[in-house]
Amino acid sequence: MRLSLGKARPRGAGGKEAPRGLELRPQSLPMGGAIASRANIRPMFEAAEIGHRVDDEDYDARVPALRVRLLNAQYELLETKKVSVVVVVAGVDGAGKGDTINLLQSWLDPRLVRVHGIGAPTEAEKERPPFARFWARLPPRGNTGVFMGSWYSKPILDRAFRRTKNTHLDSSMEHIRRFERMLTHENVVLVKLWFHLSKKEQKKRLHRLEKDPKTRWRVTAKDWEHFKLYDRFRKVSARAIRETSTDFAPWLVVSGNDANYRQLTVAQALVTAMERANAAPERQPPDPHVSPTPPEVDGRTVLDTLDLSKTLAKKKYRARLEELQGQLSMLVRDKKFHDNGSLVCVFEGADAAGKGGAIRRAVGALDARHYHIVPIAAPTDEEAARPYLWRFWRHIPGRGRVVIFDRSWYGRLLVERVEGFAAKGDWMRGYAEINEFEEQLVEHGIRVAKLWLQISPEEQLRRFEERQQTGFKRFKITDEDWRNREKATQYRDAINDMIERTSTELAPWTLVEANDKRYARIKVLETLVKTLSER
Amino acid sequence: MRLSLGKARPRGAGGKEAPRGLELRPQSLPMGGAIASRANIRPMFEAAEIGHRVDDEDYDARVPALRVRLLNAQYELLETKKVSVVVVVAGVDGAGKGDTINLLQSWLDPRLVRVHGIGAPTEAEKERPPFARFWARLPPRGNTGVFMGSWYSKPILDRAFRRTKNTHLDSSMEHIRRFERMLTHENVVLVKLWFHLSKKEQKKRLHRLEKDPKTRWRVTAKDWEHFKLYDRFRKVSARAIRETSTDFAPWLVVSGNDANYRQLTVAQALVTAMERANAAPERQPPDPHVSPTPPEVDGRTVLDTLDLSKTLAKKKYRARLEELQGQLSMLVRDKKFHDNGSLVCVFEGADAAGKGGAIRRAVGALDARHYHIVPIAAPTDEEAARPYLWRFWRHIPGRGRVVIFDRSWYGRLLVERVEGFAAKGDWMRGYAEINEFEEQLVEHGIRVAKLWLQISPEEQLRRFEERQQTGFKRFKITDEDWRNREKATQYRDAINDMIERTSTELAPWTLVEANDKRYARIKVLETLVKTLSER
Repeated sequence: MRLSLGKARPRGAGGKEAPRGLELRPQSLPMGGAIASRANIRPMFEAAEIGHRVDDEDYDARVPALRVRLLNAQYELLETKKVSVVVVVAGVDGAGKGDTINLLQSWLDPRLVRVHGIGAPTEAEKERPPFARFWARLPPRGNTGVFMGSWYSKPILDRAFRRTKNTHLDSSMEHIRRFERMLTHENVVLVKLWFHLSKKEQKKRLHRLEKDPKTRWRVTAKDWEHFKLYDRFRKVSARAIRETSTDFAPWLVVSGNDANYRQLTVAQALVTAMERANAAPERQPPDPHVSPTPPEVDGRTVLDTLDLSKTLAKKKYRARLEELQGQLSMLVRDKKFHDNGSLVCVFEGADAAGKGGAIRRAVGALDARHYHIVPIAAPTDEEAARPYLWRFWRHIPGRGRVVIFDRSWYGRLLVERVEGFAAKGDWMRGYAEINEFEEQLVEHGIRVAKLWLQISPEEQLRRFEERQQTGFKRFKITDEDWRNREKATQYRDAINDMIERTSTELAPWTLVEANDKRYARIKVLETLVKTLSER
Repeated sequence: MRLSLGKARPRGAGGKEAPRGLELRPQSLPMGGAIASRANIRPMFEAAEIGHRVDDEDYDARVPALRVRLLNAQYELLETKKVSVVVVVAGVDGAGKGDTINLLQSWLDPRLVRVHGIGAPTEAEKERPPFARFWARLPPRGNTGVFMGSWYSKPILDRAFRRTKNTHLDSSMEHIRRFERMLTHENVVLVKLWFHLSKKEQKKRLHRLEKDPKTRWRVTAKDWEHFKLYDRFRKVSARAIRETSTDFAPWLVVSGNDANYRQLTVAQALVTAMERANAAPERQPPDPHVSPTPPEVDGRTVLDTLDLSKTLAKKKYRARLEELQGQLSMLVRDKKFHDNGSLVCVFEGADAAGKGGAIRRAVGALDARHYHIVPIAAPTDEEAARPYLWRFWRHIPGRGRVVIFDRSWYGRLLVERVEGFAAKGDWMRGYAEINEFEEQLVEHGIRVAKLWLQISPEEQLRRFEERQQTGFKRFKITDEDWRNREKATQYRDAINDMIERTSTELAPWTLVEANDKRYARIKVLETLVKTLSER
């Protein structure tokens, strides 16, 4: 009992875990010795080892129609621009990944497909979280991106080479599940292809290549070395596949042994995914089921705890400002920060809360070459054609640099929620997606400071009126600003939910009492200094 | 005579060259010994050495109004989005470049300014021509980019360290003049600031920094080493400044000795440039004066020399195609290409000339990870906000890679000319700008293949009709395609001019007789193989 179930389902044994889509055969109990001896051979691979093949005649008969379907599906994808397609190519070396993709590319309109061979990360890529380079390559809607080498490669190889443990692998797979779920919700269709060869087939292939003088050069000592790891690689892969074969992004295990079979299988999988996306009605946001944070029974929220009457005298302010700017400047110039650090600051707050002024004081003592302020307004069309976090990922700083977001991804949970630009199901998933995003930054060693500047409605009104009268600020106040004031209660709920659900231990919010600008600016600077000084 | 004129105007002496804007004093003849002995001290620097200063009272009185003007100018720039502003910061170390820019940044709305500290190029940047990294950082219209370290740094330092000769410096300055002229025409306002210190001031400054324990760390052995090169650096800089002080992008030499003076001077220069741009009427294209290529007296053009009746039998085609694809594949897989090569292909031709099919055959044997096809349609809004070549620069390949443009920058000289999307003065300057662009690619070791696919009007009509009937090509033919046919003569002139004026020895056009698709595809492949095999 322990052997059969335990080996096959290392986690959640005892029937708690629902069987996943790709486990083709139910476990039969009890197992005989012959079966038990290959207990670590996963059923999903067995299905790919039954000797699939397609003869040439059959192949030739089916290809022309398939090609027409592929092109039609591609052009419709381009015309409607509802989704983009991301093809993940993984699997055993020598199972025909490259050949198949090259052939597929010749069947497709290659102008609408970009194939990314993902190798070792560049220096600039190493400075960002591991997912950054995949984000950067996401295709715009209407197009297809093929990832040869993907977010799966490193976790699987790390585990196969025993650089990591299973817990680490599982945690990586959990991040991947979240990433892929988010992509799916953001109009990306995922086609995940695992090219498989049995150990015997793999060995035969290497021998065959070595025999032919024309292909001998293709077999290196490393190939044989990898072959020795076949069993380990297979075991780890099976685990990774099982953990990430989700309803929204299932794996397709492709038998790599017969070229005809694998080409048809892959083309078929791609065209089906495209056609289904083209035929689908407008994407439905996920059903959120529940409300975000339930209302407080005493009606008090964390914003109510702020004492907005706090002030700071001019003289004290000046002295403290200089002191803090000096400290911040030292921290950013520091060799440690220069070589390894980076800082992401998020400024949020109601209109006229003083974000701009606070940002200016924050960067006041910094070398302008070290920071970059990203004002968030409407997305460009290149940004709008991709998942909503793409436009923020593209500004994540490298080593020694500071990026300040003047408004940020939190727009999803604030203005998009309140104004109805995002459906409830979409902003509801935003909490977890944003926490995941920030976790990736922090785990990579990027410091994250999130500042909410809070002002009272009365103070806001006073500032609006003041702005309308002064000279150079006249561009700052729009009709929209006035309209937003009318939605005060809805914004209040949205802000409270945001703070409650995204103030994580890795990336906590700092609430800044901002009725007094001097007080607010000092608190902002103190927060940044603290964020950079920690640990 | 020789001494005074010759030294001051090393090139074009004898009055042929018009005096440039920044030579503040006319040469007085004949010169006495005292003046002649400092003949290599350029008048432009002398003007910055007369001890400019602004006292604190004066400074404090002028700053508030200047700051209001700066912000107003910035917001108007953003509102109208007519131009972008590029500030080039160069000059002597220690002349206050960093401090001044940091202060300026605190006066401006820093969200609309990005300061680029340009140091040593990254690996990825080294793989592209030197100008690529400046292109990549050009601000969109409405915004300002500050370049600390710019296209001037390397040529000037190379010359000062005697790694190059004057001829090399002059040639670099000529490329810069062309680059800046193009930027100016493309709605970029250039503000070029040269921060200057006399040798005495420079020495005093280093001593002063060394004396103060708080600043001692800022003076390194390298600083003194650089100081020893002061005279050489000054001489080279003067030459560079003189060569690039043009009517469209003059240098402003700023005395760096007095902080008040230099801050006001720089702020004043920037605000004036912005205000002038804001007040200017819509940009006028340059007056082209002349026609492109005059009509041939015998009415025959290079296109007429093509024998469109050339065909290739199916069997021959198949054999040759396989052979050429094999060769191309070998050339791209070659270690030399992988480590150092890259290839840019341009496909142009009338609608239905067979570009798509030829591209497919060209990439047919390539690994899909090695190439990337860029179909050129309408620019995205990020592209439209920048000079027109920006969208092509962003796709220039790194080492070991092939990029294929399906239509290209030649749209400027074809559709934009014929349809009137570009004014005559704008497409007329396009010939030289495009030649300059391609020269930069080739000089950097990138192979460039430019293919024009020519079909007869009759063959085009036949293909249009055929396309309307077949299934999966239905998206390829639009009303616009039919309209374009009506402008045949205008296109003919445009094509001829394009070929005559952009078929350079560095990047020649290959004209492909394309009435027979098989013949055309083989010629295309032969051209690519030849392009990669040369030298």
